[in-house]
Parts: sequence; C-alpha cells; structure tokens
Amino acid sequence: MLKDLSLSKVYQLLEPGPVVLLTTAWQGRVNVMTMSWHMMVEFEPPLIAGVVSSANYSFAALRATKECVIAVPAVELASKVVKVGNCSGRDVQKFERFGLTPAPAERVAPPLVAECFANLECKVTDARLVNKYNLFVLEVLKAWIDPAQKYPKTIHHHGCGRFAVDGEMIKLKSRMR
Amino acid sequence: MLKDLSLSKVYQLLEPGPVVLLTTAWQGRVNVMTMSWHMMVEFEPPLIAGVVSSANYSFAALRATKECVIAVPAVELASKVVKVGNCSGRDVQKFERFGLTPAPAERVAPPLVAECFANLECKVTDARLVNKYNLFVLEVLKAWIDPAQKYPKTIHHHGCGRFAVDGEMIKLKSRMR
Repeated sequence: MLKDLSLSKVYQLLEPGPVVLLTTAWQGRVNVMTMSWHMMVEFEPPLIAGVVSSANYSFAALRATKECVIAVPAVELASKVVKVGNCSGRDVQKFERFGLTPAPAERVAPPLVAECFANLECKVTDARLVNKYNLFVLEVLKAWIDPAQKYPKTIHHHGCGRFAVDGEMIKLKSRMR
Repeated sequence: MLKDLSLSKVYQLLEPGPVVLLTTAWQGRVNVMTMSWHMMVEFEPPLIAGVVSSANYSFAALRATKECVIAVPAVELASKVVKVGNCSGRDVQKFERFGLTPAPAERVAPPLVAECFANLECKVTDARLVNKYNLFVLEVLKAWIDPAQKYPKTIHHHGCGRFAVDGEMIKLKSRMR
C-alpha cells in the first residue's frame, strides 16, 4: 500500500542522485526507461529537470503526452533497472518482461512502478530546452512513498554498469534545507 | 599534482549525484558555494545543467562572468563542504576561513579547489532558463583529476544536513555508457 508523501519532501528523494525509472503511456502502450540525468530545480511545488534522449522510445511519448512518472528503485531492483536500460520499448514490453508491476497513478496516465519505494507523478511544464538538449522541466503533481521500505539504499551510476550503493548516513549541522 | 582527465569521462563524476563545490571570480573576489542541484546533459563535449539560486552570492558572479569551476569533494571534506554551504560570500572569505586552497585554472578565471579529487572548468553556454529557474547550462572546457585520491567516496545530500556516503560498488552487465 503506497502512502502520500508531502510535496515539500520530494527534493530529499532526488537530490542525492539515484538512478530512477521513468514511465510513459502513449498510443495504448506503457513503457519504462532508466534515467540518471535528472536534478531538482525547485523545492515546492517540486520542479525536476531531466534529460530523455531523443534516441529513447520514451522521448516521443513524453513530448506528446507531457506526462510521466519518476519511480525510485532501491538496490534490490538494481539488476532489473539495468535490464530496463539495456533494451528499448520499441522491441520489448518491459513491465511484463522484467516482472515489474504497473499501478494506476492518480493525476497522470503513466503507471507507478509498485516495486519502487517512491513514485512521483509529473507533467512537463517547460519544453524550451527540449529541441536543443532533450531537457524537460517537470512539475511533481503527486508523490507516493512505500512505508514498508524503511531504509531504502539507492544506486548511483558511475558509467558502464558500475554503481555506488548508498553506504553510511552521516548528519552534519547544516542550515541547508 | 592534478592530472588531465579526458572530457569523455567527465559524466562519470557527476552522474552519480555527488554534492559539489562551485567557484566563481568577480570584481576581484573569489568565492565558493555548495551545490547539489546539477546533472549531466551531454557526454562530449560535456554539458552540465546546474541551479544556482539567485539568493546566493555566486549567482551574480556566474551570470556576469559566465565562468565557474565545479569541484568534487570526497567525504573527508564533508564538514568543510557543509560549512561552505552555511554561510555567504557576502560576509565571509570562504577559501581562507575554511582552509581551502585555490589553485589557478587553465581556461577560466575562477580557481580550482586543490583539495577536491576532481575539478571541472566551465563556461555558461545557455542562459535561457536562468530568469525563470536559476538554471544554467555549462560546458566543461577542461577537467582535472587528483591521481593521489584513488577511491574517493562522495556524499549525497538527503536534506537538512543528512548525507549518504558512497558504499559498496557493484558492477552489472550494462549496455549503458
């Protein structure tokens, strides 16, 4: 059972730079891709920038529908996350092939990924840098968290299939939000 | 002694989402800030997008000079990185205060941070999203690596001074670059 997450906390999920999944729905097909090129742009309402290559099957869907879900997987899903990134939605029904469970979103057509510990329902709010850089600015409309996954460790891509898994957590006296 | 890093490998430094330092030089003053909102946009020449809040002292310098250095600190610098983020260049000469060593860059005026394991000399190449989102697109002109720091562990901000330190490295069979 997924639970509401306050939009004010969304930045804490993406600011650390985890590899994420991105889902789309277009012309009767859902798809999922792997994405590492994303960042926070604003706290609240949460804005995210993300690069979806025009070579990706998801690009046309995202540009046409202006909707996606960003799902954050923990390390237990690492092997599936890489397999999702190794093939294209042109050829493969990836949810079925890799045993991922699409779950209905509330505000957008693309599905949540039930196995992920967080899911962010997004719409495209700025497409000015899409033609030149494939860079989309997204607004998070609704956020979900899986309370059963208490201390999820995320993965961070260092290129060529090498990933750093979250290790020790440290706390420093910070005025930073 | 810093060493050249091939521009084709720059993405492997920033794609994992480390907290970084950003230096500027303007009107006879150098400054350094802490940044977590950045992402890769293109492999080569490497393009990076980064958000520098207009509330930051560095904003005006970056907008006016169109130059900065992005320096990547390892966990040993975490305490200094947070202190840099807790104060403003308006009030503090941060390099001196926190014992960081500015080193001359080759292609830009802002200094490298000698203690960081990687330094990227950057120029602003697209400012279209600056007014609305404080989002700069940067091109990396020159990259440096410190070969003495062999397995640097980076830190990833989870909000409010909590950081995940890089843990285990895993390798999965990937077609992803």
